[in-house]
Amino acid sequence: MTTSDQKQGNVHFIRHDSEVLKGNPLGDKHVREVIVYTPPGYEETGEAYPSIYCLTGFTGRGKMLLNDNAFTPNLAERMDRLIGSGQIKPMIAVMPDCFTYYGGSQYINSAATGNYEDYLIDEIVPFVDAHFRTTADRESRAVMGKSSGGYGSLVLGMRNYDIFGLVCSTAGDCYFEHCYPMDFAKAYRVIKGDPRAFMKKFWASEKMGKDDFPALNTIGMSSCYSPNAESPWVDYLPFDLETGEIRVDVWQRWLEHDPVRLVEKSVDNLKSLKLLYLDAGTRDEFALDVGARILSKKLRDFGIDHIHEEFDDGHMNISYRYNRSLELISERVSAAQI
Amino acid sequence: MTTSDQKQGNVHFIRHDSEVLKGNPLGDKHVREVIVYTPPGYEETGEAYPSIYCLTGFTGRGKMLLNDNAFTPNLAERMDRLIGSGQIKPMIAVMPDCFTYYGGSQYINSAATGNYEDYLIDEIVPFVDAHFRTTADRESRAVMGKSSGGYGSLVLGMRNYDIFGLVCSTAGDCYFEHCYPMDFAKAYRVIKGDPRAFMKKFWASEKMGKDDFPALNTIGMSSCYSPNAESPWVDYLPFDLETGEIRVDVWQRWLEHDPVRLVEKSVDNLKSLKLLYLDAGTRDEFALDVGARILSKKLRDFGIDHIHEEFDDGHMNISYRYNRSLELISERVSAAQI
Amino acid sequence: MTTSDQKQGNVHFIRHDSEVLKGNPLGDKHVREVIVYTPPGYEETGEAYPSIYCLTGFTGRGKMLLNDNAFTPNLAERMDRLIGSGQIKPMIAVMPDCFTYYGGSQYINSAATGNYEDYLIDEIVPFVDAHFRTTADRESRAVMGKSSGGYGSLVLGMRNYDIFGLVCSTAGDCYFEHCYPMDFAKAYRVIKGDPRAFMKKFWASEKMGKDDFPALNTIGMSSCYSPNAESPWVDYLPFDLETGEIRVDVWQRWLEHDPVRLVEKSVDNLKSLKLLYLDAGTRDEFALDVGARILSKKLRDFGIDHIHEEFDDGHMNISYRYNRSLELISERVSAAQI
Amino acid sequence: MTTSDQKQGNVHFIRHDSEVLKGNPLGDKHVREVIVYTPPGYEETGEAYPSIYCLTGFTGRGKMLLNDNAFTPNLAERMDRLIGSGQIKPMIAVMPDCFTYYGGSQYINSAATGNYEDYLIDEIVPFVDAHFRTTADRESRAVMGKSSGGYGSLVLGMRNYDIFGLVCSTAGDCYFEHCYPMDFAKAYRVIKGDPRAFMKKFWASEKMGKDDFPALNTIGMSSCYSPNAESPWVDYLPFDLETGEIRVDVWQRWLEHDPVRLVEKSVDNLKSLKLLYLDAGTRDEFALDVGARILSKKLRDFGIDHIHEEFDDGHMNISYRYNRSLELISERVSAAQI
Repeated sequence: MTTSDQKQGNVHFIRHDSEVLKGNPLGDKHVREVIVYTPPGYEETGEAYPSIYCLTGFTGRGKMLLNDNAFTPNLAERMDRLIGSGQIKPMIAVMPDCFTYYGGSQYINSAATGNYEDYLIDEIVPFVDAHFRTTADRESRAVMGKSSGGYGSLVLGMRNYDIFGLVCSTAGDCYFEHCYPMDFAKAYRVIKGDPRAFMKKFWASEKMGKDDFPALNTIGMSSCYSPNAESPWVDYLPFDLETGEIRVDVWQRWLEHDPVRLVEKSVDNLKSLKLLYLDAGTRDEFALDVGARILSKKLRDFGIDHIHEEFDDGHMNISYRYNRSLELISERVSAAQI
Repeated sequence: MTTSDQKQGNVHFIRHDSEVLKGNPLGDKHVREVIVYTPPGYEETGEAYPSIYCLTGFTGRGKMLLNDNAFTPNLAERMDRLIGSGQIKPMIAVMPDCFTYYGGSQYINSAATGNYEDYLIDEIVPFVDAHFRTTADRESRAVMGKSSGGYGSLVLGMRNYDIFGLVCSTAGDCYFEHCYPMDFAKAYRVIKGDPRAFMKKFWASEKMGKDDFPALNTIGMSSCYSPNAESPWVDYLPFDLETGEIRVDVWQRWLEHDPVRLVEKSVDNLKSLKLLYLDAGTRDEFALDVGARILSKKLRDFGIDHIHEEFDDGHMNISYRYNRSLELISERVSAAQI
Repeated sequence: MTTSDQKQGNVHFIRHDSEVLKGNPLGDKHVREVIVYTPPGYEETGEAYPSIYCLTGFTGRGKMLLNDNAFTPNLAERMDRLIGSGQIKPMIAVMPDCFTYYGGSQYINSAATGNYEDYLIDEIVPFVDAHFRTTADRESRAVMGKSSGGYGSLVLGMRNYDIFGLVCSTAGDCYFEHCYPMDFAKAYRVIKGDPRAFMKKFWASEKMGKDDFPALNTIGMSSCYSPNAESPWVDYLPFDLETGEIRVDVWQRWLEHDPVRLVEKSVDNLKSLKLLYLDAGTRDEFALDVGARILSKKLRDFGIDHIHEEFDDGHMNISYRYNRSLELISERVSAAQI
Repeated sequence: MTTSDQKQGNVHFIRHDSEVLKGNPLGDKHVREVIVYTPPGYEETGEAYPSIYCLTGFTGRGKMLLNDNAFTPNLAERMDRLIGSGQIKPMIAVMPDCFTYYGGSQYINSAATGNYEDYLIDEIVPFVDAHFRTTADRESRAVMGKSSGGYGSLVLGMRNYDIFGLVCSTAGDCYFEHCYPMDFAKAYRVIKGDPRAFMKKFWASEKMGKDDFPALNTIGMSSCYSPNAESPWVDYLPFDLETGEIRVDVWQRWLEHDPVRLVEKSVDNLKSLKLLYLDAGTRDEFALDVGARILSKKLRDFGIDHIHEEFDDGHMNISYRYNRSLELISERVSAAQI
């Protein structure tokens, strides 16, 4: 810890009142902070900058990307350093909040949680472009993230041709057969037949129990992948609440959201990307390295250009991997003049 | 550790040369020890005794049931104590060896490993009846075991009407969706595309690596559930060796061996059992408590009488649960006169 | 996550240029942020408020008390809630930064790291009193913290009669025989004879290795408890760098800093406190619950009034325990008029 | 698992009624099995063989060295293989039982448990020499073991000049400062002030709890190192039962039994050994690799010839390391003619 003379960008916390989230089924708040990092020099120059949307993992929200740790730079500090050393161009970073009562939204629309894909695409992107000097075209707009944030990056990139021209996924949820079912029996045990009661108890407790995560994760994913249109509550878990047997029909609904299966519906979009980057750690506890391999194979089969890398680590505490995404984005993003 | 004046039974190690196992595809030995416990008094009386076949878990073989531990009685000591205290009748216990190069046989016939179900039913049971004073009928013959030994007990009981009239499964493999797939991604990583090379390295190493078990378990189960008739080697793993994707056709072959699915084929046999007992620990690492619940529900749906219990423990070091099986067998077994 | 209409206090980040830390032996920065929370209403009223100094654990710094987590309120949110619900009085909270290159200062003066006790007492307290409407007397000033922050609270309270009238320690380092030596062999292995090289490598690496913490902790504590006056570097580890043998002379220097042993030097100060509170979790991985029991016994032996509690948890993620400290402080602190 | 044509030695279980253990303070049995392995050919030849005493770790007893494991040879199988392949000479192996109610004896005399050193030296060695064709001199008699068995080997070798000429310790208890105190706080918590009640509960329970081992280990070591002459029960634990504070006087008694400290009392004996071998794994959970380094340094300081090795492993499941001890013993032992 020595004195640092690093030039620092600014972080803006802006209140945004969402029409899309108003009246969402969970009663989650519709007024949220949009957090925007502007690089050193932003205030002095009149230039426009590329923008990067950084999506957090499940249970996260944008603000957590700014958490302080003496040994690991947060996203703003990381960008300051990379910009300061010339490793990346000055860019704007956006940290949206798509958290829900069930732990997250996977950044997609859901009858159970709200329309978070619409929220990002229809509200937040225009809002940021209106309030900051971004280069407001897809060649200059990237989306990246880790875990569920990697998932969000992939599916947003697949489905929103005109918005994101660059997509990076670090350990993104992928090939659901390997990453989710291992939690189902644990979730079944903890939920004890009543997901509503579990959620109430969960939010009332002072500390997440060690067995709570598989339950929360399973409920959270259900709320995104297999919502029940007739009830805002999760009635469509992928197992029978009484016996624990897999519900094949529900599981099938989950699979329809798997990036591996979505590829074929988005081939042209994916081919048009200026950057499609996947990585994962070879000890990933959710086997997302295996998922990334399978996705990469599928992309190759369809002739979709992409970069696939692996690193020697697990799923947790891998924010240092953001550097690789940021560097690739910086290389390929268009930094057009205004 | 105080002096014990417990009367002790005898343990007999008998060499048996199997015709069934001769020329088995793995070159595993066909001359094996059959281990038989006879209760205190066996030598003095001329009586016949009920017999219990005790099946070990995966990676185990009969001899391991006699391993010494200062704090936990082995099977012979356990029976000495229970008989001595009057908790169970004097009974004969048989500890067969159905181990294979792949770690186990699941006690069934397989084109990849050999015909271990035939070995037990056609050779070992008659051999024991011929050499020991058993009451040689199904009302007086039980099968019990833990984990893969519980699996073996269930399927042997289902399929061999005339042999076993009492069946006990402790944490038996059941509802394969919850107990096996969690290992597949780990196995995929360790096997690195070549199960033969993995097995060679495994047997040559001094110590099982912490990631070896999921690979061995997956290969072992494949050798039992989805053998390749054209090759003694495991070519039918439930995932693609190159990409790690699930092979649905192979997985379907596994599922056909799931006790939950076998119930409907054996309803009459199961109804005729004098005892059908299931238990599992509520923290079982392979979710076999959930599997047992599902099996129990299926049995109830078919009107099959059984006892289903749970206990507060995991999957390992639960030999104390044998007491419960032994007591139930003792209660219900026929101890007919010769 | 429902909409919250909680009234919120403000958090102030103020640049402070320290004379005490200028030229510190490690070259750590002397310009640091002092972070101050002012309660809801502070701006509207002209009142003075009690102040609480909140000290973080080893590897922490004030800013981390404000980290965002969707499930756990940070210190500002926690105070907002407790004040909003009437559980505590409106109070000012101060979050100082006493981090060092070795991971922390234990909030004491050291020839190896700098004079952090002087920094807090001589600079930060007057600075806060000058810039905020605190009630600037010991009856209205508390110090609290967890782990090394609990240690700091105890020793600052013992030694600065006129400054802190209320002291709360949650799982504070105490009875060094139980909490530190378990790390020494691990530290010895990782340091490999060269603490300087270890520290360089540590700071250069992207992620703390799982065996790094015991080494960093041991080096950090050495820098505080057994500094070498002739060198700013840690030459006085409590074990021989070559053989790993305990250095009894160094260990003795550590013990002189143990709160259990400091009690007898501060009996009158401790008796004069308006609040002395200790707690720890009964599964604390560093046995600090046992340490707290021993300290409590020592306090009783000297007739020093205090409150000692235990809770069912370990050492990590226990910020919910701050509530108890804050409530006790609120009860006993003087909230005098200006 | 292929057919093995390995020639096999024989294992003899011989009932021995001990005078030394008769009336031992714990009421542990004085009639115990002495287990002796004789090599292939023993029955055919008239030759005498070197003998090796193999001491088990804490909670073990000789019989456990013969436990069956499909992947790891037991001691008899291991010797069969090494003899069969010519890696070692044919030798006799002795597996004594020195277990006690407290989990072990450390193979030394104790007022709390009994005189296990006398038992081995005065009774078992002559008994074995009388019943088997050993070469009955120190040049042909070795002692080896792991963990507490390594400790026993070291101290028996130090103190019984005329008995053992070769000593091998694998991960033997050594440098007590690193290996025992980490358990004290855990033991304190579990013992809850009453070691007698703990022991009763321990023996009555069906399964060792995860926190029981530190308590049992601490009680067991106390019974060996700091026995209370006036009571057969452990009243001299190294911490205060009420507060958990270290009892320096008791700890000092422990230290007097540390091999590192015993070296200076046995320099001549140690110099006379034909083999003194130490090893330990560099990830040993009890830091016994660090202990072995310290012991090795002490031996060098006194000019005592020895071999010191390290291997890449922890403390558990390291029986494969016996090979190294057996090979070194075979090289250096005298295999004199009768």
